[in-house]
Order: sequence, then structure tokens, then C-alpha cells
Amino acid sequence: MTKSVEKSPGISQGLHFVATTVLMACLLLFCSTGQGQEKVIQALFEEALSSDIAYENLRVLTQKTAGRISGTPEAAAAVELTRQIMEGMDLDSVYLQEVMVPRWIRGEPEQARVISDLLGSSQLTVSALGLSVGTGQAGLTAQVIEVQGLEDLEKLGADIRGKIIFFNRPFDQKHFNTFAGYGSAVDQRFSGPAVAARFGAVAAIVRSVTSAYHDHAHTGVTQYMENGPNIPALAVSPVGADLLSSWLKQDPDLRLFVRNTSHKLPDVLSYNVIGEIRGSQYPGSIITVGGHLDSWDNSPGAHDDGAGCMQSIEVLRLFKHLGIQPKRTLRAVMFMDEEIAQRGGNQYALQAHQAGENHYFAIESDRGAFSPTGFSIDASDPRVHAIQQLAPFFAPYGIHEIFRGGSGVDIDPLKNYFEVTLAGLVTDSQRYFDLHHAPTDTFDQVNRREMQLGSAAMAALIYLTDLLDILD
Amino acid sequence: MTKSVEKSPGISQGLHFVATTVLMACLLLFCSTGQGQEKVIQALFEEALSSDIAYENLRVLTQKTAGRISGTPEAAAAVELTRQIMEGMDLDSVYLQEVMVPRWIRGEPEQARVISDLLGSSQLTVSALGLSVGTGQAGLTAQVIEVQGLEDLEKLGADIRGKIIFFNRPFDQKHFNTFAGYGSAVDQRFSGPAVAARFGAVAAIVRSVTSAYHDHAHTGVTQYMENGPNIPALAVSPVGADLLSSWLKQDPDLRLFVRNTSHKLPDVLSYNVIGEIRGSQYPGSIITVGGHLDSWDNSPGAHDDGAGCMQSIEVLRLFKHLGIQPKRTLRAVMFMDEEIAQRGGNQYALQAHQAGENHYFAIESDRGAFSPTGFSIDASDPRVHAIQQLAPFFAPYGIHEIFRGGSGVDIDPLKNYFEVTLAGLVTDSQRYFDLHHAPTDTFDQVNRREMQLGSAAMAALIYLTDLLDILD
Repeated sequence: MTKSVEKSPGISQGLHFVATTVLMACLLLFCSTGQGQEKVIQALFEEALSSDIAYENLRVLTQKTAGRISGTPEAAAAVELTRQIMEGMDLDSVYLQEVMVPRWIRGEPEQARVISDLLGSSQLTVSALGLSVGTGQAGLTAQVIEVQGLEDLEKLGADIRGKIIFFNRPFDQKHFNTFAGYGSAVDQRFSGPAVAARFGAVAAIVRSVTSAYHDHAHTGVTQYMENGPNIPALAVSPVGADLLSSWLKQDPDLRLFVRNTSHKLPDVLSYNVIGEIRGSQYPGSIITVGGHLDSWDNSPGAHDDGAGCMQSIEVLRLFKHLGIQPKRTLRAVMFMDEEIAQRGGNQYALQAHQAGENHYFAIESDRGAFSPTGFSIDASDPRVHAIQQLAPFFAPYGIHEIFRGGSGVDIDPLKNYFEVTLAGLVTDSQRYFDLHHAPTDTFDQVNRREMQLGSAAMAALIYLTDLLDILD
Repeated sequence: MTKSVEKSPGISQGLHFVATTVLMACLLLFCSTGQGQEKVIQALFEEALSSDIAYENLRVLTQKTAGRISGTPEAAAAVELTRQIMEGMDLDSVYLQEVMVPRWIRGEPEQARVISDLLGSSQLTVSALGLSVGTGQAGLTAQVIEVQGLEDLEKLGADIRGKIIFFNRPFDQKHFNTFAGYGSAVDQRFSGPAVAARFGAVAAIVRSVTSAYHDHAHTGVTQYMENGPNIPALAVSPVGADLLSSWLKQDPDLRLFVRNTSHKLPDVLSYNVIGEIRGSQYPGSIITVGGHLDSWDNSPGAHDDGAGCMQSIEVLRLFKHLGIQPKRTLRAVMFMDEEIAQRGGNQYALQAHQAGENHYFAIESDRGAFSPTGFSIDASDPRVHAIQQLAPFFAPYGIHEIFRGGSGVDIDPLKNYFEVTLAGLVTDSQRYFDLHHAPTDTFDQVNRREMQLGSAAMAALIYLTDLLDILD
């Protein structure tokens, strides 16, 4: 659609001109009324749905900086790309904020092979978990014990020594909200390897925490204990997990060969990327809209979270395009290193504190660029209630749930220093964990209209909370 | 996920057994209470989300019967496939309902080539519109007039004679509801060719009515006037439309060569496919759940409407699996020939009338198997209100809008004979017109969980309306 707009510039520019003119008139005359505010919100949604600028920027980001985990050249390219995009937008300032980030590399492609005297041998699709240590060049071979969760380890006790522990409790599909399904299984990935190591396991292999059934492995960070023994930890695809489980039933003595060379390197200097529209009345009061710029190294990171970054930049573009001047300073922030250690978010909050800034509101998009369904608000009761009063403005756009809940990993550290209202953009969760942390998180899985509804939803909430001063 | 369930039968069957046991207890003890009904609805959603039976059936349907427009061997295969699926379900009866359907064939692959003395020549991706006549074997070549809608034809008048009319008003992306965007442009496809013919045009080419920007053409039926002149009518891809429009600006005298050999044949005997669970208390009172079995010949018809068919069958499976015995007869109907002449829907209603049946409620799924957002109810005010009172049962599943509106093309004819309540399953519309009537409407575009939420939503609404007798 967008290229059609580009190729009929008369119509497109005419429409934009009319929209902008109508809007400016509205801003001058009516915006103190609910009806005027409705018109502005309508203009935000219409402009978002008619534009492909953010979507095409996401295409470039995913094509040119796929695998941009913190500390990589790809992450540096993403920093420069988003800096340049915002430099081209006539913002009041664009700058980089230094942050030291972890550097973990996967190394050579992982190998996993199940070997059975009864059944033969078969390769499994695996992916080292983030922060996993390697097996050494030779790899390792051991018998496998399948468990359904961490609680099984206690029972097994000494039997674990020398074995590979295979965590195979699947993602619970029964939950309507797939974040609950994710929560039903992700402890195995996050804590399982460290606990298995404590019992003497030599490696851990974890069923990918995903709602999809396919032969891709979904990675994600694993958490070793401080000074604890560290063992190699890999995710296995759902198909591979089922094969392994099936073979184990037939041959409990089978062995698994795994080999990975992943390892940590010293921290690296990287950046949060920030663009600002200066507030007209309270420039020292900050509204943040953000996503995280890093993605897993095995993924283009389209939904997680390239889209959240491009939506955040789009919020600023929408304000500029429609001539909306925020009273407070509006800042788009591309946070670095959400996936491993959340250094970007922590650094942003710390520097805001040290600079004596005042933070009014922050919203993050990091649940996939699917159709927005609501906002999750992390604030005091009166502020949650104040935002809930805005529900009628959002109802025409399918946004029907404003509730108390967590916001986003990157903006959460602001709470350490400020009495700030935090929000998370909530989106239709059904598809997210099909592609989360996997090679399947590709640009073509993002729908332009869904993504742009998210951009408009965040812009509209920022516009209203800023205009109405309801979060003071 | 499902194969994992298949491969760990102990867990899966255990869970199903527990669920069924709990449910039966609930049905016996509590189902007269709102809490008991909530539990049943929860069980419906949990079972739907945990099963891939309907999804795998859709995979087979789209693989084996792609292009199943009415009267084709593919349509006959779809009849037999769905009949066999329902025969395997231990229903009370499965049968075919005869209906004569139109037979229109596309013929040889269409050709369209723009030829300019100034710019050279370029092929365009086109697709004959449903019911279009052909150009003859030789094709035809003529100058092109681009218009933005039917109203332009009146102004052009005699200038149209001998020309190809190019309808190029795009799908309006501004609307949140893409059905409104579709409505903003589809008159050009539906009525444009007939009106252009009346003014003496020799062919019509219509910009594909789609929210996507790509080089696929989206077909759909066009409506000729009775006894009016019929001219060949083709959809052109958005990319092709922009190329043609761009070239026309540079060379208004360019010519377009088009060739298609599509034509009608005599009507063919086909069938609606029907499966039933007989009602325990009012077997003569019918509840219908349906979708349409035909798809366009250029498409696997995954969302439109293979999914609607498999969801309808799934509703019966959910009732059987959970041991819910409907008081009224519950019927899944695969309607034949929605796309061209709606013969299946009309025949179903007529036969119901002639058989003296009593129709209580009917619901159709034909808006794509995306996450359900609500129900559109076509009934008297008190009945709409009665269904709206059920909203709290659906809120936990993202279903937040129950409103007065149209239901579905296939069940609508029931209104001609019955005081029946009709409903349409409303789904997130953002992606539907990216793939509607195009080769891109493929199985991989359907998400299992989204589809199954739709199955459960329809099952839940049927369960409640039947149990509570609120539509009498």
C-alpha cells in the first residue's frame, strides 16, 4: 500500500496536508474537549495505519542487523542505524548513552546427537542457552535422565551425577494468555541447568519454551549460580525433544553427544540510542517510550524487539507529523542488552537519577508487534484508575483492557529512583511464543497494520497523559 | 505441540481424563449456576487450545483440495474429505445435501502486458474476476483510462468506448476495521466492469482489493447486468496497478494487452456437508454452526474459509469430547458455493423450511481464523440484549464486543423462513485482506491457537444459548 502512496504523491500529500490542517485547527480550538482529543487520537491512528515508514525501517533493521545480541558488530550496526533514522527526523536531539554490556558468543554451530545401541543415532536441533559455557572442543557424551521439572532433581539425587539432564516439561497450551504458558515452563531454562549442575550433571538440555511445534530451537538466557559449577546448557527443538523422549522410553541407556563452544568475553562498550522532542512547558519532565535494540544472536529479532524500537521512533514521528507539541519532553529510547543482563535499562535509570531528571511516564513495547489489546500499568492505585478513565478513547481501536501489572524490563529500573508511572503495551499474545528467541522471528511475521496500531496506541496514551496532567 | 502430546500419551490422556471427569461432575452438580457454566466454558477453551485435530484437518484440506471453487473436482474432494472426517466422529448422523452450483473456469493462465512506445513493455500480474467472460483466444489490446471509481465513468461518457477501464482506487488503510477498508474499494470489482461495459468499454482491470502491498492479484466475483454487455474483467496486483498508473502518467497513449479464456459451464451437482448431534430435549430445534467449503480457484482457502469449516466440525468434537449433550440438535454445516452464487446457503434454508424444521440459533465463521474479538448478532433487540448479558463469560478469552450486525452469507437465508437468531464470529481483522481471495491464503498463515480460540468461542456461545434457552 505504501508504495502506492509514494507513487501517487498528489493524493498522499494532499491527504496529509488536509489531515494536518484539520488537526492543527482542532488543536487550537477544541483540544480541551473530549471530542477534540478523540479527533487527535483518530488522526494518530489514521496516520499510523496509512504509513509504512516504521515498517520499512523494521525491514532494514532485521535485514542488516539480524542477530544483534549485545556486544556484537550487529548490535553496533543497530545502534548506528537507529541513530541515523532519528537524525533524519528533525528531532530536538539525538544522542547515544554509554553502557558496558556483556559479550557472550555462541561459537561454532552446536551439535547434539543421540546414540542408541538399539535405535541407531539421530541429530537433534539445539541452540546453546545464553551465557552457557561450552563443552570444550571434544564435546561430551553421557547418559540422559529426562525430568519434568526442577522438583524431580531432588528426588533423583545422586543418580544425576555424570548424566545429562533433559528438562522436558512442555509449554502449557491451556492458558489463554501465552505468557502464562511461557511461565509454566521457563523455570527449566532459567534455573534448571544451575540446579542440575549442583547435583553433578555434566550438561543440561531443555525443551524449547515455545507454543510452536517445529524443529527450531528457542534460546534465552540461563542463570548460573555465583561460584556454582557451570555446565553446558542447550535448548532443543520441540521435535528433537519428542524424539529424545521417545527413544529414552525404548532405550533408557542411550547416550547423548553434545558439543558447543560458547563462552563469555570481557564486557564491551555499547549504547542506548535516544531521540527527543523537547517539552514546551515542562522540558525537565520526561516521558519515555522504548523498546530494546538487542535481539538473540540466532534471530532477526523482528517482533522481539525490533518492532518495539521502530514503534517507539514512530511515536515521535506521529507527534511531529501531526504537529502535536508535547508539554513534557518525549523521548524514544532503544535500550541495549535486554536479553542478557538488562544493562541498558539500568544505565538509563541511573543516569536519569544522577542528572536530576523528573520522570513522569514511561511505556515499553516488548510483547510482539501484534494487535494491541490494552495497557498494563505499574503505578499507584489513583494513577491506574486515572488511566482506566481513558478507556473510552481506546475502545474504537480494539484496546479493551487497562489493568494493574508489570510494564517492561527496560523501564522497570526507573522505579528505583522515581515515582513514575510505568506502562507496558499489551498485545494479542497468541503467536508470540511461536517465534520468541528463535530463527523464526522474521520480518514477514510482522503485519504492518498490527504493528502500527501499537505505535498509535502508545502515541495516544502519551498524548492524553501529557495533555491532561493525570499522572502528577 | 500436538505431536508432543501424541508422543506422551500418558500425560495427555491423563489430563483429558481429569478434565472430562471434572466436567462431568460439574455438569451433574453445578451447571445451573453461573460458576458451573464458567467451568464448562473454561474446559471448552482448554481442550480447544490443547488439541491440534482441527488444525491438522485444515492442513489436509488446504493441501489436498486447494482451489476448490464450486463445481470443481477439488470441491468434490473437499465434500468427501469433510464427510469422512465427520463420519469418524461418532456423530448421530452425517449426510450430504444436494445443491446445483455454478461452474466457472478460469481457463488458461491470464496474460496482461502494458505496451508503451515511450517506456517499453511490462507484464502485469492479473487474475480474472469470478464469472468474468474471456477475451477470446487472440486477447484484446486497447488504450487504458484510469479512474478512481464508478462515478468517474459518468463524467467520461463516450470517451470510454473501445477502451480498457482501469479502476485504481486503493483499499483505504485508515480504517481500524479492515472490512470498512474493503468496503471502500470493492464496489469497483463488484459493479465496475458492468458499468464500464454499459459505456462501451472493451475490458475492465481492477486494482486488487487488498490491504497488502505485493505482486499477487486478489480475485472475487464480479456482477454483470442481466442482458447487459459482458466484458472481460481482471484484478491486477497492487504492484501491477502502481506500475500501470505510473506509466499512464508518462504515456497516456499506452496500450494494454489482456487475454483470458475464462467462461461459464452448465451448473453442476454438488453438496452441503452436514453432521449432527441429536438434541436430547428438543431434537426438532436446530442450532447450526458453519463455514463455507468452497474457496477461490487461485487459493488454498485456508482462512477463507477452510478454517471456518474445521472450526465448525471442532465445535461438535468439543461437545462430544467433554460429554456435553445439547438439548437441541447441533449441526455443523459445510456450505458449498459461498463465493459465486451462495447456492449452498440458500438451499440449506429452503430445505429446512420445506422439512418443517425449527431453527433456534445459527453462527458462522467466515472472517478468517484470527483471534476472536466478539460476536455480531442479527436478531431482535431482546435477543441481542440476552446475548450481550453473556459477555462476562467471554471476557477472560479476549472476546469483548457483542453487537448488533450481520452474521454470515451462508446462514443469512435462514431469515427468509425462520425467526432465528443469527451470529457471526468476529475476529481480529488486521490481516484478513492481506490474503483474502489470493494465493497467499495458505495454511501457514493460520495460527493453531487463534483458530482454536474461535472454535471454543462458538462452542461456548452455543452451549450457553442452548442451556439457558435465552433465544426462544
